[in-house]
Amino acid sequence: SVKCTSNVQYSITPPPQETSHLAPIPLNGNSVLLISMSQASQYENDSKLVYDMNHYLEYFGHAKSLCDKQNVCRAEISLDVDADRDNVVEKNNPNKGSWKWGSNGHGAILLVNCDSERKYWKKPDSEENFVSKVSDLKDMSVMVLRTRGPVKLPEGYKLTMHISQGDAEKGKLYNYFVKDYPLVLSSEVLSQEVPYIGGRAEMNFYVEGLRFPDKDFDGLISINLSLLEPISEVRSGLPETPIFTDKVVFRVAPWIMTPNTLNPVEVFVCSTSDNYQFLKGMKNLVTKSGYKLKICHEYVNRGDRWMQDELEFGYIDSPHQRFPVVLDSPRDGKLLDFPYNELLGPDFGYVTRVAERKDVSSLDSFGNLEVSPPVTVNGKNYPLGRILIGVAFPTATKGRNMTKVVQDFLWAQKVQEPIALFSDWLLVGHIDEFMTFVPAPDRKGFRLLLASPDAGYKLFRGLQKDGHGQAKLFEGLKDEEPITVDDILSHDSFQAENNYVQSCIDWNRDVLKRELGLDEDDIIDLPILFKLEVEEDKTYRAVAFYPDMVNMIVLGKNLGIPKPFGPKVNGRCALEAEMCCLMEGLGLSCTFIDDFASYHKLLGEVHCGSNVLREPFAFKWWNLEM
Amino acid sequence: SVKCTSNVQYSITPPPQETSHLAPIPLNGNSVLLISMSQASQYENDSKLVYDMNHYLEYFGHAKSLCDKQNVCRAEISLDVDADRDNVVEKNNPNKGSWKWGSNGHGAILLVNCDSERKYWKKPDSEENFVSKVSDLKDMSVMVLRTRGPVKLPEGYKLTMHISQGDAEKGKLYNYFVKDYPLVLSSEVLSQEVPYIGGRAEMNFYVEGLRFPDKDFDGLISINLSLLEPISEVRSGLPETPIFTDKVVFRVAPWIMTPNTLNPVEVFVCSTSDNYQFLKGMKNLVTKSGYKLKICHEYVNRGDRWMQDELEFGYIDSPHQRFPVVLDSPRDGKLLDFPYNELLGPDFGYVTRVAERKDVSSLDSFGNLEVSPPVTVNGKNYPLGRILIGVAFPTATKGRNMTKVVQDFLWAQKVQEPIALFSDWLLVGHIDEFMTFVPAPDRKGFRLLLASPDAGYKLFRGLQKDGHGQAKLFEGLKDEEPITVDDILSHDSFQAENNYVQSCIDWNRDVLKRELGLDEDDIIDLPILFKLEVEEDKTYRAVAFYPDMVNMIVLGKNLGIPKPFGPKVNGRCALEAEMCCLMEGLGLSCTFIDDFASYHKLLGEVHCGSNVLREPFAFKWWNLEM
Repeated sequence: SVKCTSNVQYSITPPPQETSHLAPIPLNGNSVLLISMSQASQYENDSKLVYDMNHYLEYFGHAKSLCDKQNVCRAEISLDVDADRDNVVEKNNPNKGSWKWGSNGHGAILLVNCDSERKYWKKPDSEENFVSKVSDLKDMSVMVLRTRGPVKLPEGYKLTMHISQGDAEKGKLYNYFVKDYPLVLSSEVLSQEVPYIGGRAEMNFYVEGLRFPDKDFDGLISINLSLLEPISEVRSGLPETPIFTDKVVFRVAPWIMTPNTLNPVEVFVCSTSDNYQFLKGMKNLVTKSGYKLKICHEYVNRGDRWMQDELEFGYIDSPHQRFPVVLDSPRDGKLLDFPYNELLGPDFGYVTRVAERKDVSSLDSFGNLEVSPPVTVNGKNYPLGRILIGVAFPTATKGRNMTKVVQDFLWAQKVQEPIALFSDWLLVGHIDEFMTFVPAPDRKGFRLLLASPDAGYKLFRGLQKDGHGQAKLFEGLKDEEPITVDDILSHDSFQAENNYVQSCIDWNRDVLKRELGLDEDDIIDLPILFKLEVEEDKTYRAVAFYPDMVNMIVLGKNLGIPKPFGPKVNGRCALEAEMCCLMEGLGLSCTFIDDFASYHKLLGEVHCGSNVLREPFAFKWWNLEM
Repeated sequence: SVKCTSNVQYSITPPPQETSHLAPIPLNGNSVLLISMSQASQYENDSKLVYDMNHYLEYFGHAKSLCDKQNVCRAEISLDVDADRDNVVEKNNPNKGSWKWGSNGHGAILLVNCDSERKYWKKPDSEENFVSKVSDLKDMSVMVLRTRGPVKLPEGYKLTMHISQGDAEKGKLYNYFVKDYPLVLSSEVLSQEVPYIGGRAEMNFYVEGLRFPDKDFDGLISINLSLLEPISEVRSGLPETPIFTDKVVFRVAPWIMTPNTLNPVEVFVCSTSDNYQFLKGMKNLVTKSGYKLKICHEYVNRGDRWMQDELEFGYIDSPHQRFPVVLDSPRDGKLLDFPYNELLGPDFGYVTRVAERKDVSSLDSFGNLEVSPPVTVNGKNYPLGRILIGVAFPTATKGRNMTKVVQDFLWAQKVQEPIALFSDWLLVGHIDEFMTFVPAPDRKGFRLLLASPDAGYKLFRGLQKDGHGQAKLFEGLKDEEPITVDDILSHDSFQAENNYVQSCIDWNRDVLKRELGLDEDDIIDLPILFKLEVEEDKTYRAVAFYPDMVNMIVLGKNLGIPKPFGPKVNGRCALEAEMCCLMEGLGLSCTFIDDFASYHKLLGEVHCGSNVLREPFAFKWWNLEM
């Protein structure tokens, strides 16, 4: 027999044979009595159930019944997140416990709280164990504990939240409900009881990421909620057991780089005692283009002018918040404090990877870290482009490389799958010495520009043929011996050096065509010559012979190009004329900036000496099909 | 003008305007002269080309032309593997440089050469730097260098093979062509010149895997071949540059476990001074079932009878070879040398993971490592089943766990995605104490059997009701006090303990239903009672009260079940009768084996004391859709 109060329902499977209404129900050995309550209780144990049989009780679904022989009650509990990525924490999303990429995907998103709400005594917020300002909550993901049930839970039952040790190193959780947002879960507290508020209630929690995805962290963090049942009053000392667990999963947002085709926001350069000419050129260009120029003064840069090399700008994005994040290079020149001291701040994040000094080489400067515009390769879409880094040649048994911790970090972000190019053939060893991308109105929306000694020789031979063999490079430059076109073309050894350079660039051209899905018509060869210098280990490595025009700054349709000081024909530099001719077809305007003494002679150019903070992609990374 | 010998072709793009046949061809500034050779050369520089113009030469495709102003020749070179997985190394598969899962996938496969061709002085073959026997080549993947071209390459050109440092730690490569199969590439030699054989030639290489996929190794290994061009005679000291590179990718085959539904091959048990009764029972069962019984004698096992716990049988598979591989547990009881000394051999591989002693607990015994039969969960197929391990409860802030190195290994195999169950509530802590799988003719092809105190109480209450309350458990057992059904049912505290155990098993039941996509009808509850024992840290943990029938050995349709010594009704054990009744419906035959004194009293049963080598899956792991 089964008797119960009105809001308790029961059924018996398989259905028993028909009997008179009041007679006991005959059951076979496999009968199951299924008890359910359609509505949450108002009080603990407000409903009654009396049964008399050998039984199994089967608990169903997310709203579990608490059974106590005669007293039953129903509490509905769900731990909720924004699993559909619309910046609203929906109720009990069936997919909240897993994560799937793509526009049809699901799963909540967490930001590494790597900005600093405070401007003074600053520190990435994730390193604090408290919420320093209410504005910091904007950088966290809301998690809601929704309950609907009796005023209080039956005696001894309690709710706990828990996180694994591994996950707790990558994320932590604050309670909104209680004043001052105390920490609920962290690597020091893996499990904590949370209050049950009776009736229909919502309690907000705020979750922040602590670490970016990396080689040892796939980016996923789970948080669990359990309803614990007290065991037996008869038998003391028994552990509590969970009778219901809910789980939510977050993915920590990756760090995303911004290619030259995205709109600039701010341009950063260093001011030094000797770069007035360069600064003036940059200021004109940036102002004309309509962007902001930020100058890092000498008391900060201490003579280190290589703004490109110390840091890379990127951003992190979620349905609820987005801000730029600077990746600080392990290069650590005299600009080393600039990213932390000058950039980190409210809604400006900071991340770095620390390498041992001995493992850091010139290839760790971020002139050696670039990103392509969006591409499609053999049907596979890369709507956020692909990261490009320079390493030693694959056949090389020794050689310089980008340090492992930075490479691991870049690969682990996943959304801009990196490509390794060969840059160790260059003395400085940065990929920005032989390649860049510029926007284009047609085709794939951009062109790849490559330095090309062959194009250089072609141009110089043409000049010679047209009777300009005596035109001089480097004219009017202080401390620089001019050299004629005839002179350049007369040295077989110099030609051999440039053939070698061309073969190195050709190798990269093949890789870029294959990995970015480019055709020949997507590539423009720029006339640039190199020379080889022998190093102490007797290896020859290349440097640009005249200012390396490919090492430019791209600001929308305006290009800031190292002034090449090439041979003049009818009063106009033939290299500038060629450059303008190549770029004009794409609707791009060339501004040549004199960086000869202050950058070129120090083995860098315009791009090496600047950095551009750009707008993020409109495309959302979580919509990537992986 | 362009002139060339008959097997050299050229074209000019864009096509020049029509002129008289013999007049020079006018070209515009963007003209490209494309030179190609349709056939491989017979001699180096056997073809001629004379051109007179400013030019770019464009090299196409995998068969690159070697150009020397007037002398040209064509050599076709490809590094080939079995990328279509049919055990034949096809020529220049366009997908050989990448790896894709699935029946429409591609990519070559490598085995870890973890067996030992030698039976004496043995050692996994992969640890040797030579090929000890020709038969060892069967365990390696063939890679073919195919060339077609001139008798010799032009002066200074050469072929090299290379592998990255990281990949070389995971695979190495022998040359078949040269006598005695010398090592070509290894972590000591990352790059080596390989001979170019003129004409149409094939050179075989043999590649072996050194490491299984793991946390720090995704399983992919690349091998590269480059054709190096000598640079300039004019300018000495310049490095060589590759003008053509071919790449092949292998994936190292994962270690795969075999569920109870696969056919047995051999059964392993230990012989000890006190287990004659058990051995006799096992021998009868195994012989009757038609399989081989292998007995590990006492001079090897030194009294350690837990054959299940020291090792797990699995296998590795590829299109060219397949063999069993034993995973040696870090448990390292007195059976520790058995897997290496007795199992490793020709076509029987060995792998282990080493953990620090302090990190090893009872949960590292492989009674705590099982695998489900094939399942489909929410539309996702697991044709090789899913691995099951036992860990501490998710809410627990402390607790025992399976050691990280073993968990990492299991997860990294990818093809049997693991599920973590909760087993720390058991004193011994192994999942085989509360669950197993048996084959079934219907539904999903199997049933999950779960220990169930509820089912136990139901059975005993039924006995009491039917007047058998005075029937005794443990009758006739030496040194064991019999206990009546009435006695068992009279202790509230014992019931409370079993309620606790039931709640722990219910938790696992929920996880198993969800993660294996099971319905209630896929599960059978076995009447088994537990009792709690207090440990030195004052926590209570469970052990089986009478022989734990779920801890059985499954040999096809024959089950070897711990004899429960339950209460007798009409001369027949009620627990055995119930067990037979539950299994008969599935066409399974129950044999009860007396393991009381020699296993049960030492906290293990039949399954703990045996191990079964099974046939591999017919399903090929590389056909998994991931």
